[in-house]
Amino acid sequence: MPSFTDRLRRFQTRVERALDAHLPAVTSAPQRLHEAMRYVTLDGGKRVRASLVYAAAEAVGAPDAAGDVPACAVELIHAYSLVHDDLPCMDDDDLRRGKPTCHRAYDEATALLAGDALQSLAFEILANDPALTVSADQRLRMIALFAQAAGSQGMAGGQAIDLASSGQTLALAQLEDMHLRKTGALIRAAVLLGACTREDVPPAKLAALEAYSRAIGLAFQITDDILDVEGKAETLGKNPGVDHARGKPTYPLLLGLSAAKARGKALHAQALESLAALGDNGAMLAELAGFIIERRQ
Amino acid sequence: MPSFTDRLRRFQTRVERALDAHLPAVTSAPQRLHEAMRYVTLDGGKRVRASLVYAAAEAVGAPDAAGDVPACAVELIHAYSLVHDDLPCMDDDDLRRGKPTCHRAYDEATALLAGDALQSLAFEILANDPALTVSADQRLRMIALFAQAAGSQGMAGGQAIDLASSGQTLALAQLEDMHLRKTGALIRAAVLLGACTREDVPPAKLAALEAYSRAIGLAFQITDDILDVEGKAETLGKNPGVDHARGKPTYPLLLGLSAAKARGKALHAQALESLAALGDNGAMLAELAGFIIERRQ
Repeated sequence: MPSFTDRLRRFQTRVERALDAHLPAVTSAPQRLHEAMRYVTLDGGKRVRASLVYAAAEAVGAPDAAGDVPACAVELIHAYSLVHDDLPCMDDDDLRRGKPTCHRAYDEATALLAGDALQSLAFEILANDPALTVSADQRLRMIALFAQAAGSQGMAGGQAIDLASSGQTLALAQLEDMHLRKTGALIRAAVLLGACTREDVPPAKLAALEAYSRAIGLAFQITDDILDVEGKAETLGKNPGVDHARGKPTYPLLLGLSAAKARGKALHAQALESLAALGDNGAMLAELAGFIIERRQ
Repeated sequence: MPSFTDRLRRFQTRVERALDAHLPAVTSAPQRLHEAMRYVTLDGGKRVRASLVYAAAEAVGAPDAAGDVPACAVELIHAYSLVHDDLPCMDDDDLRRGKPTCHRAYDEATALLAGDALQSLAFEILANDPALTVSADQRLRMIALFAQAAGSQGMAGGQAIDLASSGQTLALAQLEDMHLRKTGALIRAAVLLGACTREDVPPAKLAALEAYSRAIGLAFQITDDILDVEGKAETLGKNPGVDHARGKPTYPLLLGLSAAKARGKALHAQALESLAALGDNGAMLAELAGFIIERRQ
Protein backbone atom coordinates (compact mmCIF):
# COMPACT_ATOMS: atom_id res chain seq x y z
CA MET A 1 0.00 0.00 0.00
CA PRO A 2 1.44 3.42 -0.94
CA SER A 3 2.47 5.68 1.93
CA PHE A 4 0.47 8.74 2.96
CA THR A 5 3.11 10.97 1.38
CA ASP A 6 2.85 9.09 -1.92
CA ARG A 7 -0.92 9.34 -1.93
CA LEU A 8 -0.81 13.02 -1.04
CA ARG A 9 1.67 13.60 -3.87
CA ARG A 10 -0.68 11.77 -6.24
CA PHE A 11 -3.51 14.14 -5.33
CA GLN A 12 -1.22 17.17 -5.61
CA THR A 13 -0.01 16.07 -9.05
CA ARG A 14 -3.57 15.45 -10.26
CA VAL A 15 -4.90 18.84 -9.20
CA GLU A 16 -1.80 20.65 -10.46
CA ARG A 17 -2.33 19.11 -13.88
CA ALA A 18 -6.05 19.89 -13.82
CA LEU A 19 -5.42 23.51 -12.82
CA ASP A 20 -2.84 23.95 -15.54
CA ALA A 21 -5.32 22.59 -18.08
CA HIS A 22 -8.18 24.83 -16.90
CA LEU A 23 -6.36 28.11 -16.44
CA PRO A 24 -6.36 30.30 -19.55
CA ALA A 25 -3.11 30.25 -21.55
CA VAL A 26 -0.70 33.15 -21.07
CA THR A 27 -0.59 33.44 -24.84
CA SER A 28 -4.26 34.50 -24.94
CA ALA A 29 -5.36 38.07 -24.14
CA PRO A 30 -5.34 39.63 -21.61
CA GLN A 31 -1.92 38.07 -21.11
CA ARG A 32 -0.86 39.87 -17.95
CA LEU A 33 -4.09 38.92 -16.21
CA HIS A 34 -3.70 35.30 -17.26
CA GLU A 35 -0.09 35.32 -16.07
CA ALA A 36 -1.21 36.62 -12.67
CA MET A 37 -3.96 33.99 -12.42
CA ARG A 38 -1.37 31.29 -13.07
CA TYR A 39 1.19 32.88 -10.74
CA VAL A 40 -1.15 32.67 -7.76
CA THR A 41 -2.69 29.30 -8.53
CA LEU A 42 0.23 27.18 -9.74
CA ASP A 43 2.50 27.99 -6.86
CA GLY A 44 3.12 24.68 -5.21
CA GLY A 45 0.72 25.09 -2.33
CA LYS A 46 0.06 22.07 -0.13
CA ARG A 47 -3.29 21.47 -1.87
CA VAL A 48 -4.96 20.49 1.39
CA ARG A 49 -8.41 21.39 0.03
CA ALA A 50 -7.97 19.51 -3.23
CA SER A 51 -6.70 16.51 -1.28
CA LEU A 52 -9.81 16.63 0.88
CA VAL A 53 -11.95 16.50 -2.27
CA TYR A 54 -10.09 13.43 -3.56
CA ALA A 55 -10.02 11.70 -0.19
CA ALA A 56 -13.75 12.31 0.33
CA ALA A 57 -14.44 10.94 -3.15
CA GLU A 58 -12.38 7.89 -2.19
CA ALA A 59 -14.32 7.61 1.06
CA VAL A 60 -17.60 7.23 -0.84
CA GLY A 61 -16.09 4.86 -3.39
CA ALA A 62 -15.54 7.23 -6.33
CA PRO A 63 -12.37 7.13 -8.46
CA ASP A 64 -9.76 9.91 -8.34
CA ALA A 65 -10.81 11.17 -11.78
CA ALA A 66 -14.24 12.08 -10.35
CA GLY A 67 -12.58 14.53 -8.02
CA ASP A 68 -10.58 16.51 -10.59
CA VAL A 69 -13.20 19.15 -11.39
CA PRO A 70 -14.33 19.93 -7.83
CA ALA A 71 -10.71 19.79 -6.58
CA CYS A 72 -9.78 22.32 -9.22
CA ALA A 73 -12.75 24.57 -8.40
CA VAL A 74 -11.92 24.53 -4.70
CA GLU A 75 -8.27 25.44 -5.31
CA LEU A 76 -9.30 28.27 -7.67
CA ILE A 77 -11.56 29.77 -5.01
CA HIS A 78 -8.87 29.30 -2.37
CA ALA A 79 -6.29 31.04 -4.58
CA TYR A 80 -8.67 33.94 -5.25
CA SER A 81 -9.32 34.35 -1.53
CA LEU A 82 -5.60 34.49 -0.75
CA VAL A 83 -4.97 37.11 -3.44
CA HIS A 84 -7.74 39.37 -2.15
CA ASP A 85 -6.81 38.69 1.47
CA ASP A 86 -3.21 39.82 0.84
CA LEU A 87 -4.25 43.18 -0.69
CA PRO A 88 -3.22 46.38 1.13
CA CYS A 89 -6.82 47.11 2.19
CA MET A 90 -7.00 43.67 3.83
CA ASP A 91 -3.93 42.06 5.43
CA ASP A 92 -1.37 43.97 3.34
CA ASP A 93 1.00 41.03 3.05
CA ASP A 94 4.16 41.05 0.95
CA LEU A 95 4.95 37.35 1.08
CA ARG A 96 2.89 34.27 0.41
CA ARG A 97 4.46 30.81 0.36
CA GLY A 98 7.88 32.44 0.18
CA LYS A 99 7.09 34.47 -2.96
CA PRO A 100 5.95 38.08 -3.41
CA THR A 101 2.18 38.31 -3.13
CA CYS A 102 0.24 38.94 -6.34
CA HIS A 103 -0.14 42.70 -5.91
CA ARG A 104 3.61 42.93 -5.19
CA ALA A 105 4.60 40.81 -8.18
CA TYR A 106 2.06 42.55 -10.46
CA ASP A 107 -0.02 45.45 -9.16
CA GLU A 108 -3.12 45.93 -7.05
CA ALA A 109 -5.57 46.25 -9.91
CA THR A 110 -4.27 43.09 -11.57
CA ALA A 111 -4.48 41.22 -8.25
CA LEU A 112 -8.05 42.38 -7.75
CA LEU A 113 -9.10 41.30 -11.25
CA ALA A 114 -7.16 38.02 -11.10
CA GLY A 115 -9.08 37.11 -7.93
CA ASP A 116 -12.38 38.10 -9.53
CA ALA A 117 -11.67 36.06 -12.64
CA LEU A 118 -10.54 33.01 -10.65
CA GLN A 119 -13.88 33.00 -8.86
CA SER A 120 -15.78 33.06 -12.19
CA LEU A 121 -13.57 30.28 -13.56
CA ALA A 122 -14.34 28.02 -10.61
CA PHE A 123 -18.07 28.23 -11.35
CA GLU A 124 -17.51 27.85 -15.07
CA ILE A 125 -15.70 24.53 -14.78
CA LEU A 126 -18.19 23.17 -12.26
CA ALA A 127 -20.96 24.04 -14.71
CA ASN A 128 -19.49 22.72 -17.95
CA ASP A 129 -16.47 20.46 -17.57
CA PRO A 130 -17.39 17.07 -19.06
CA ALA A 131 -14.82 15.31 -16.84
CA LEU A 132 -17.39 15.61 -14.05
CA THR A 133 -19.84 12.87 -14.88
CA VAL A 134 -22.60 13.33 -12.28
CA SER A 135 -26.16 14.20 -13.32
CA ALA A 136 -27.10 17.80 -14.14
CA ASP A 137 -29.16 18.00 -10.94
CA GLN A 138 -26.19 16.88 -8.85
CA ARG A 139 -23.93 19.42 -10.57
CA LEU A 140 -26.40 22.16 -9.66
CA ARG A 141 -26.41 20.99 -6.04
CA MET A 142 -22.62 21.12 -6.08
CA ILE A 143 -22.58 24.65 -7.54
CA ALA A 144 -25.11 25.91 -5.00
CA LEU A 145 -23.23 24.34 -2.07
CA PHE A 146 -19.99 25.81 -3.37
CA ALA A 147 -21.45 29.30 -3.94
CA GLN A 148 -22.82 29.33 -0.39
CA ALA A 149 -19.41 28.34 0.96
CA ALA A 150 -17.73 31.20 -0.91
CA GLY A 151 -20.30 33.91 -0.24
CA SER A 152 -21.40 36.28 2.47
CA GLN A 153 -22.54 33.52 4.82
CA GLY A 154 -19.34 31.58 4.16
CA MET A 155 -15.77 32.55 3.35
CA ALA A 156 -16.31 36.21 2.36
CA GLY A 157 -18.52 36.67 5.42
CA GLY A 158 -15.86 35.14 7.66
CA GLN A 159 -13.31 37.60 6.29
CA ALA A 160 -15.65 40.48 7.08
CA ILE A 161 -16.11 39.26 10.66
CA ASP A 162 -12.35 38.79 10.97
CA LEU A 163 -11.71 42.40 9.91
CA ALA A 164 -14.33 43.72 12.28
CA SER A 165 -12.90 41.73 15.18
CA SER A 166 -9.33 43.07 15.00
CA GLY A 167 -8.47 44.48 18.40
CA GLN A 168 -11.69 43.04 19.90
CA THR A 169 -12.02 40.41 22.57
CA LEU A 170 -14.17 37.58 21.30
CA ALA A 171 -15.76 34.77 23.25
CA LEU A 172 -14.68 31.28 22.13
CA ALA A 173 -18.06 30.74 20.45
CA GLN A 174 -17.65 33.93 18.41
CA LEU A 175 -14.09 33.03 17.44
CA GLU A 176 -15.23 29.61 16.27
CA ASP A 177 -18.19 31.05 14.40
CA MET A 178 -15.79 33.32 12.53
CA HIS A 179 -13.43 30.46 11.65
CA LEU A 180 -16.24 28.11 10.65
CA ARG A 181 -17.04 30.69 7.98
CA LYS A 182 -13.62 32.03 7.06
CA THR A 183 -11.67 28.77 6.78
CA GLY A 184 -14.25 26.15 7.66
CA ALA A 185 -16.78 26.86 4.91
CA LEU A 186 -14.40 26.02 2.08
CA ILE A 187 -13.00 22.97 3.89
CA ARG A 188 -16.56 21.73 4.45
CA ALA A 189 -17.32 22.38 0.77
CA ALA A 190 -14.19 20.47 -0.29
CA VAL A 191 -15.24 17.39 1.70
CA LEU A 192 -18.89 17.55 0.62
CA LEU A 193 -18.06 18.16 -3.05
CA GLY A 194 -15.83 15.10 -2.95
CA ALA A 195 -18.73 13.12 -1.48
CA CYS A 196 -21.10 14.54 -4.14
CA THR A 197 -19.13 12.81 -6.89
CA ARG A 198 -21.36 9.84 -6.04
CA GLU A 199 -25.11 10.36 -5.95
CA ASP A 200 -26.02 7.37 -3.81
CA VAL A 201 -24.22 8.24 -0.58
CA PRO A 202 -26.40 7.40 2.45
CA PRO A 203 -27.35 10.47 4.57
CA ALA A 204 -25.56 8.99 7.63
CA LYS A 205 -22.26 8.96 5.73
CA LEU A 206 -22.79 12.52 4.53
CA ALA A 207 -23.51 13.61 8.10
CA ALA A 208 -20.31 11.88 9.27
CA LEU A 209 -18.31 13.67 6.57
CA GLU A 210 -19.87 16.96 7.55
CA ALA A 211 -18.96 16.44 11.22
CA TYR A 212 -15.43 15.50 10.18
CA SER A 213 -15.11 18.63 8.03
CA ARG A 214 -16.29 20.87 10.85
CA ALA A 215 -13.72 19.47 13.27
CA ILE A 216 -10.79 19.72 10.87
CA GLY A 217 -11.88 23.18 9.72
CA LEU A 218 -11.55 24.50 13.26
CA ALA A 219 -8.43 22.47 13.97
CA PHE A 220 -6.83 23.87 10.81
CA GLN A 221 -7.24 27.37 12.19
CA ILE A 222 -5.96 26.46 15.63
CA THR A 223 -2.80 25.07 14.05
CA ASP A 224 -2.50 28.28 12.02
CA ASP A 225 -2.76 30.35 15.18
CA ILE A 226 -0.22 28.20 17.02
CA LEU A 227 2.22 28.43 14.10
CA ASP A 228 1.81 32.21 14.22
CA VAL A 229 3.22 31.98 17.75
CA GLU A 230 5.73 29.14 17.39
CA GLY A 231 6.52 28.90 13.68
CA LYS A 232 9.64 30.05 11.87
CA ALA A 233 9.56 32.35 8.84
CA GLU A 234 11.66 30.01 6.68
CA THR A 235 9.27 27.10 7.22
CA LEU A 236 6.07 29.18 7.04
CA GLY A 237 6.98 31.12 3.90
CA LYS A 238 5.57 34.17 5.65
CA ASN A 239 6.38 36.12 8.78
CA PRO A 240 5.15 34.61 12.06
CA GLY A 241 3.69 36.77 14.80
CA VAL A 242 1.80 39.04 12.42
CA ASP A 243 -1.69 38.02 13.53
CA HIS A 244 -0.68 38.61 17.10
CA ALA A 245 0.87 41.98 16.23
CA ARG A 246 -2.30 43.00 14.38
CA GLY A 247 -4.33 42.37 17.50
CA LYS A 248 -6.30 39.62 15.77
CA PRO A 249 -8.16 37.36 18.13
CA THR A 250 -6.50 33.92 18.10
CA TYR A 251 -6.92 30.69 20.01
CA PRO A 252 -3.64 31.08 21.95
CA LEU A 253 -4.62 34.64 22.87
CA LEU A 254 -8.05 33.55 24.05
CA LEU A 255 -7.23 30.21 25.67
CA GLY A 256 -3.48 30.31 26.26
CA LEU A 257 -1.06 28.22 24.19
CA SER A 258 -1.42 24.90 25.95
CA ALA A 259 -5.22 25.00 26.09
CA ALA A 260 -5.23 25.93 22.39
CA LYS A 261 -3.11 22.84 21.69
CA ALA A 262 -5.45 20.70 23.78
CA ARG A 263 -8.45 22.02 21.83
CA GLY A 264 -6.66 21.09 18.58
CA LYS A 265 -6.09 17.56 19.90
CA ALA A 266 -9.71 17.21 20.96
CA LEU A 267 -10.91 18.29 17.52
CA HIS A 268 -8.49 15.83 15.93
CA ALA A 269 -10.03 13.04 18.01
CA GLN A 270 -13.55 14.20 17.05
CA ALA A 271 -12.60 14.17 13.37
CA LEU A 272 -11.33 10.59 13.60
CA GLU A 273 -14.40 9.49 15.53
CA SER A 274 -16.70 10.95 12.86
CA LEU A 275 -14.94 8.83 10.25
CA ALA A 276 -15.90 5.58 11.98
CA ALA A 277 -19.09 5.47 9.87
CA LEU A 278 -16.95 5.21 6.71
CA GLY A 279 -14.87 2.20 7.66
CA ASP A 280 -11.59 1.60 5.82
CA ASN A 281 -12.56 3.98 3.02
CA GLY A 282 -12.01 6.89 5.39
CA ALA A 283 -8.32 6.06 5.95
CA MET A 284 -6.96 8.86 3.78
CA LEU A 285 -9.29 11.42 5.37
CA ALA A 286 -8.02 10.26 8.77
CA GLU A 287 -4.42 10.75 7.70
CA LEU A 288 -5.24 14.16 6.23
CA ALA A 289 -6.69 15.22 9.58
CA GLY A 290 -3.36 14.42 11.21
CA PHE A 291 -1.48 16.20 8.42
CA ILE A 292 -3.60 19.33 8.79
CA ILE A 293 -3.37 19.46 12.54
CA GLU A 294 0.29 18.52 12.99
CA ARG A 295 1.70 20.48 10.05
CA ARG A 296 4.66 22.83 10.52
CA GLN A 297 3.70 25.33 7.84
CA MET B 1 -50.62 49.01 -25.08
CA PRO B 2 -48.50 50.32 -22.20
CA SER B 3 -45.85 52.88 -23.09
CA PHE B 4 -42.14 52.06 -23.19
CA THR B 5 -41.64 53.93 -19.94
CA ASP B 6 -44.38 51.89 -18.26
CA ARG B 7 -42.89 48.62 -19.46
CA LEU B 8 -39.42 49.67 -18.43
CA ARG B 9 -40.75 50.58 -14.99
CA ARG B 10 -42.42 47.16 -14.77
CA PHE B 11 -39.06 45.47 -15.42
CA GLN B 12 -37.30 47.74 -12.94
CA THR B 13 -39.88 47.03 -10.27
CA ARG B 14 -39.67 43.27 -10.85
CA VAL B 15 -35.89 43.10 -10.58
CA GLU B 16 -35.80 45.46 -7.62
CA ARG B 17 -38.19 43.16 -5.76
CA ALA B 18 -36.24 40.05 -6.79
CA LEU B 19 -32.94 41.59 -5.67
CA ASP B 20 -34.41 42.62 -2.34
CA ALA B 21 -35.67 39.08 -1.82
CA HIS B 22 -32.34 37.44 -2.75
CA LEU B 23 -29.91 39.71 -0.92
CA PRO B 24 -29.13 38.56 2.63
CA ALA B 25 -30.97 40.46 5.37
CA VAL B 26 -29.08 43.19 7.21
CA THR B 27 -30.22 41.56 10.43
CA SER B 28 -28.11 38.46 9.69
CA ALA B 29 -24.34 38.37 10.35
CA PRO B 30 -22.09 39.80 9.05
CA GLN B 31 -24.42 42.79 9.13
CA ARG B 32 -22.06 45.45 7.80
CA LEU B 33 -21.17 43.32 4.78
CA HIS B 34 -24.84 42.65 4.07
CA GLU B 35 -25.59 46.35 4.41
CA ALA B 36 -22.86 47.17 1.90
CA MET B 37 -24.15 44.51 -0.54
CA ARG B 38 -27.61 46.09 -0.35
CA TYR B 39 -26.23 49.63 -0.56
CA VAL B 40 -24.57 48.98 -3.91
CA THR B 41 -27.27 46.80 -5.43
CA LEU B 42 -30.53 48.48 -4.40
CA ASP B 43 -29.56 51.94 -5.51
CA GLY B 44 -32.07 52.79 -8.19
CA GLY B 45 -29.87 52.11 -11.21
CA LYS B 46 -31.49 52.13 -14.62
CA ARG B 47 -31.52 48.31 -14.70
CA VAL B 48 -30.64 48.26 -18.38
CA ARG B 49 -29.19 44.75 -18.10
CA ALA B 50 -32.14 43.32 -16.19
CA SER B 51 -34.49 44.93 -18.73
CA LEU B 52 -32.56 43.24 -21.53
CA VAL B 53 -33.10 39.88 -19.82
CA TYR B 54 -36.85 40.47 -19.54
CA ALA B 55 -37.17 41.87 -23.06
CA ALA B 56 -35.20 38.95 -24.54
CA ALA B 57 -37.42 36.53 -22.62
CA GLU B 58 -40.44 38.34 -24.08
CA ALA B 59 -38.86 38.14 -27.53
CA VAL B 60 -38.77 34.34 -27.35
CA GLY B 61 -42.26 34.11 -25.87
CA ALA B 62 -41.41 33.54 -22.18
CA PRO B 63 -43.34 35.29 -19.37
CA ASP B 64 -41.73 38.01 -17.22
CA ALA B 65 -41.50 35.64 -14.26
CA ALA B 66 -39.07 33.45 -16.20
CA GLY B 67 -36.65 36.35 -16.33
CA ASP B 68 -36.53 37.16 -12.61
CA VAL B 69 -33.63 34.86 -11.66
CA PRO B 70 -31.30 35.67 -14.58
CA ALA B 71 -32.18 39.39 -14.35
CA CYS B 72 -31.24 39.33 -10.70
CA ALA B 73 -27.99 37.43 -11.37
CA VAL B 74 -26.97 39.89 -14.08
CA GLU B 75 -27.62 42.90 -11.84
CA LEU B 76 -25.65 41.30 -8.98
CA ILE B 77 -22.63 40.80 -11.25
CA HIS B 78 -23.00 44.31 -12.61
CA ALA B 79 -23.12 45.77 -9.10
CA TYR B 80 -20.04 43.78 -8.02
CA SER B 81 -18.13 45.01 -11.09
CA LEU B 82 -18.98 48.64 -10.31
CA VAL B 83 -17.87 48.30 -6.68
CA HIS B 84 -14.51 46.81 -7.65
CA ASP B 85 -14.11 49.24 -10.56
CA ASP B 86 -14.56 52.21 -8.22
CA LEU B 87 -11.83 51.07 -5.78
CA PRO B 88 -8.73 53.26 -5.37
CA CYS B 89 -6.52 50.73 -7.17
CA MET B 90 -8.86 50.87 -10.17
CA ASP B 91 -10.71 54.07 -11.13
CA ASP B 92 -10.66 55.59 -7.62
CA ASP B 93 -14.12 57.09 -7.91
CA ASP B 94 -15.92 58.88 -5.08
CA LEU B 95 -19.35 59.11 -6.63
CA ARG B 96 -21.60 56.55 -8.28
CA ARG B 97 -25.14 57.40 -9.31
CA GLY B 98 -24.93 60.53 -7.15
CA LYS B 99 -24.01 58.65 -3.96
CA PRO B 100 -20.65 57.97 -2.31
CA THR B 101 -19.10 54.84 -3.78
CA CYS B 102 -19.05 51.72 -1.60
CA HIS B 103 -15.50 52.13 -0.32
CA ARG B 104 -16.29 55.77 0.56
CA ALA B 105 -19.54 54.92 2.34
CA TYR B 106 -17.98 51.89 4.08
CA ASP B 107 -14.29 51.08 3.64
CA GLU B 108 -12.11 49.44 1.04
CA ALA B 109 -12.02 46.01 2.63
CA THR B 110 -15.80 45.92 2.94
CA ALA B 111 -16.18 47.05 -0.69
CA LEU B 112 -13.80 44.32 -1.83
CA LEU B 113 -15.65 41.62 0.11
CA ALA B 114 -19.09 42.92 -0.86
CA GLY B 115 -18.11 42.62 -4.52
CA ASP B 116 -16.73 39.13 -3.96
CA ALA B 117 -19.86 37.99 -2.16
CA LEU B 118 -22.18 39.49 -4.79
CA GLN B 119 -20.43 37.41 -7.44
CA SER B 120 -20.94 34.21 -5.41
CA LEU B 121 -24.59 35.10 -4.82
CA ALA B 122 -25.25 35.51 -8.54
CA PHE B 123 -24.08 31.93 -9.18
CA GLU B 124 -25.94 30.62 -6.15
CA ILE B 125 -29.33 31.87 -7.30
CA LEU B 126 -28.78 30.69 -10.87
CA ALA B 127 -27.98 27.24 -9.47
CA ASN B 128 -30.78 26.83 -6.96
CA ASP B 129 -33.62 29.31 -7.24
CA PRO B 130 -36.81 27.33 -7.96
CA ALA B 131 -38.39 30.36 -9.65
CA LEU B 132 -36.26 29.48 -12.68
CA THR B 133 -38.15 26.56 -14.18
CA VAL B 134 -35.89 25.45 -17.04
CA SER B 135 -34.31 21.96 -17.10
CA ALA B 136 -31.16 21.28 -15.08
CA ASP B 137 -29.15 21.03 -18.31
CA GLN B 138 -30.37 24.42 -19.46
CA ARG B 139 -29.53 25.95 -16.06
CA LEU B 140 -25.99 24.61 -16.39
CA ARG B 141 -25.71 26.13 -19.88
CA MET B 142 -26.87 29.45 -18.41
CA ILE B 143 -24.33 29.29 -15.58
CA ALA B 144 -21.46 28.45 -17.94
CA LEU B 145 -22.42 31.25 -20.35
CA PHE B 146 -22.68 33.67 -17.44
CA ALA B 147 -19.36 32.63 -15.88
CA GLN B 148 -17.59 33.10 -19.21
CA ALA B 149 -19.12 36.57 -19.55
CA ALA B 150 -17.86 37.56 -16.10
CA GLY B 151 -14.39 36.01 -16.27
CA SER B 152 -10.98 36.67 -17.74
CA GLN B 153 -12.16 36.39 -21.34
CA GLY B 154 -15.17 38.58 -20.57
CA MET B 155 -15.81 41.44 -18.18
CA ALA B 156 -12.80 41.03 -15.86
CA GLY B 157 -10.55 40.61 -18.89
CA GLY B 158 -11.97 43.75 -20.46
CA GLN B 159 -11.18 45.68 -17.29
CA ALA B 160 -7.60 44.42 -17.41
CA ILE B 161 -7.23 45.53 -21.03
CA ASP B 162 -8.79 48.88 -20.15
CA LEU B 163 -6.22 49.45 -17.39
CA ALA B 164 -3.34 48.46 -19.62
CA SER B 165 -4.52 50.80 -22.37
CA SER B 166 -4.61 54.01 -20.31
CA GLY B 167 -2.44 56.57 -22.08
CA GLN B 168 -2.09 54.27 -25.12
CA THR B 169 -3.33 54.90 -28.62
CA LEU B 170 -5.52 52.00 -29.70
CA ALA B 171 -6.75 51.16 -33.18
CA LEU B 172 -10.55 51.09 -33.52
CA ALA B 173 -10.49 47.27 -33.64
CA GLN B 174 -8.57 47.11 -30.34
CA LEU B 175 -10.90 49.62 -28.70
CA GLU B 176 -13.93 47.60 -29.78
CA ASP B 177 -12.35 44.34 -28.66
CA MET B 178 -11.84 45.88 -25.21
CA HIS B 179 -15.44 47.11 -25.00
CA LEU B 180 -16.90 43.87 -26.32
CA ARG B 181 -15.34 42.28 -23.24
CA LYS B 182 -15.67 45.00 -20.64
CA THR B 183 -19.25 46.12 -21.25
CA GLY B 184 -20.35 43.91 -24.12
CA ALA B 185 -19.87 40.52 -22.48
CA LEU B 186 -22.41 41.14 -19.72
CA ILE B 187 -24.89 42.78 -22.12
CA ARG B 188 -24.59 39.77 -24.42
CA ALA B 189 -25.09 37.46 -21.43
CA ALA B 190 -28.18 39.42 -20.36
CA VAL B 191 -29.79 39.01 -23.78
CA LEU B 192 -28.82 35.34 -24.16
CA LEU B 193 -29.87 34.43 -20.60
CA GLY B 194 -33.26 35.99 -21.33
CA ALA B 195 -33.49 33.86 -24.47
CA CYS B 196 -32.40 30.76 -22.52
CA THR B 197 -35.57 30.93 -20.41
CA ARG B 198 -37.12 28.97 -23.31
CA GLU B 199 -35.38 25.83 -24.48
CA ASP B 200 -36.91 25.62 -27.94
CA VAL B 201 -35.59 28.83 -29.48
CA PRO B 202 -34.49 28.24 -33.09
CA PRO B 203 -30.76 28.86 -33.71
CA ALA B 204 -31.54 31.64 -36.22
CA LYS B 205 -33.34 33.61 -33.52
CA LEU B 206 -30.49 33.10 -31.07
CA ALA B 207 -28.03 34.30 -33.71
CA ALA B 208 -30.19 37.39 -34.29
CA LEU B 209 -30.26 38.10 -30.56
CA GLU B 210 -26.52 37.69 -30.36
CA ALA B 211 -25.95 40.14 -33.25
CA TYR B 212 -28.34 42.58 -31.56
CA SER B 213 -26.48 42.29 -28.25
CA ARG B 214 -23.14 42.89 -29.90
CA ALA B 215 -24.35 46.07 -31.59
CA ILE B 216 -25.96 47.54 -28.47
CA GLY B 217 -22.98 46.54 -26.32
CA LEU B 218 -20.68 48.67 -28.43
CA ALA B 219 -23.25 51.45 -28.83
CA PHE B 220 -23.70 51.53 -25.04
CA GLN B 221 -20.02 52.32 -24.67
CA ILE B 222 -19.99 54.94 -27.42
CA THR B 223 -22.83 56.76 -25.64
CA ASP B 224 -20.86 56.50 -22.39
CA ASP B 225 -17.83 58.06 -24.06
CA ILE B 226 -19.91 60.83 -25.63
CA LEU B 227 -21.55 61.60 -22.29
CA ASP B 228 -18.10 61.83 -20.76
CA VAL B 229 -17.49 64.70 -23.21
CA GLU B 230 -20.93 66.32 -23.32
CA GLY B 231 -22.74 65.21 -20.17
CA LYS B 232 -23.44 67.24 -17.03
CA ALA B 233 -22.49 66.06 -13.54
CA GLU B 234 -26.01 66.52 -12.12
CA THR B 235 -27.53 64.28 -14.79
CA LEU B 236 -24.74 61.71 -14.84
CA GLY B 237 -24.46 61.28 -11.06
CA LYS B 238 -20.69 61.34 -11.56
CA ASN B 239 -18.14 63.80 -12.88
CA PRO B 240 -17.89 64.07 -16.67
CA GLY B 241 -14.52 64.39 -18.40
CA VAL B 242 -12.76 61.93 -16.10
CA ASP B 243 -12.10 59.28 -18.74
CA HIS B 244 -10.64 61.93 -20.97
CA ALA B 245 -8.52 63.35 -18.13
CA ARG B 246 -7.24 59.85 -17.32
CA GLY B 247 -5.99 59.46 -20.87
CA LYS B 248 -8.37 56.53 -21.46
CA PRO B 249 -8.87 55.73 -25.10
CA THR B 250 -12.44 56.69 -26.08
CA TYR B 251 -14.43 56.76 -29.30
CA PRO B 252 -14.50 60.59 -29.49
CA LEU B 253 -10.74 60.67 -28.92
CA LEU B 254 -10.11 58.09 -31.61
CA LEU B 255 -12.72 59.09 -34.20
CA GLY B 256 -13.68 62.64 -33.28
CA LEU B 257 -17.04 63.48 -31.71
CA SER B 258 -19.19 63.54 -34.82
CA ALA B 259 -17.78 60.30 -36.25
CA ALA B 260 -18.31 58.67 -32.84
CA LYS B 261 -21.96 59.76 -32.96
CA ALA B 262 -22.28 58.42 -36.49
CA ARG B 263 -20.82 55.06 -35.37
CA GLY B 264 -23.39 54.95 -32.55
CA LYS B 265 -26.21 55.59 -35.06
CA ALA B 266 -24.92 52.87 -37.40
CA LEU B 267 -24.80 50.36 -34.55
CA HIS B 268 -28.33 51.38 -33.54
CA ALA B 269 -29.49 50.63 -37.10
CA GLN B 270 -27.65 47.28 -37.05
CA ALA B 271 -29.31 46.35 -33.77
CA LEU B 272 -32.78 47.07 -35.17
CA GLU B 273 -32.02 45.15 -38.34
CA SER B 274 -30.93 42.10 -36.34
CA LEU B 275 -34.29 42.11 -34.59
CA ALA B 276 -36.20 41.63 -37.86
CA ALA B 277 -35.97 37.85 -37.34
CA LEU B 278 -38.03 38.19 -34.15
CA GLY B 279 -41.02 40.04 -35.59
CA ASP B 280 -43.29 41.93 -33.21
CA ASN B 281 -41.89 40.08 -30.19
CA GLY B 282 -38.69 42.08 -30.52
CA ALA B 283 -40.46 45.44 -30.05
CA MET B 284 -39.26 45.99 -26.50
CA LEU B 285 -35.67 45.09 -27.40
CA ALA B 286 -35.88 47.63 -30.23
CA GLU B 287 -37.05 50.32 -27.84
CA LEU B 288 -34.32 49.40 -25.36
CA ALA B 289 -31.71 49.86 -28.09
CA GLY B 290 -32.94 53.42 -28.56
CA PHE B 291 -33.03 53.98 -24.81
CA ILE B 292 -29.45 52.77 -24.40
CA ILE B 293 -28.06 54.77 -27.28
CA GLU B 294 -29.96 58.02 -26.76
CA ARG B 295 -29.76 58.13 -22.97
CA ARG B 296 -28.55 61.26 -21.17
CA GLN B 297 -26.99 59.50 -18.16
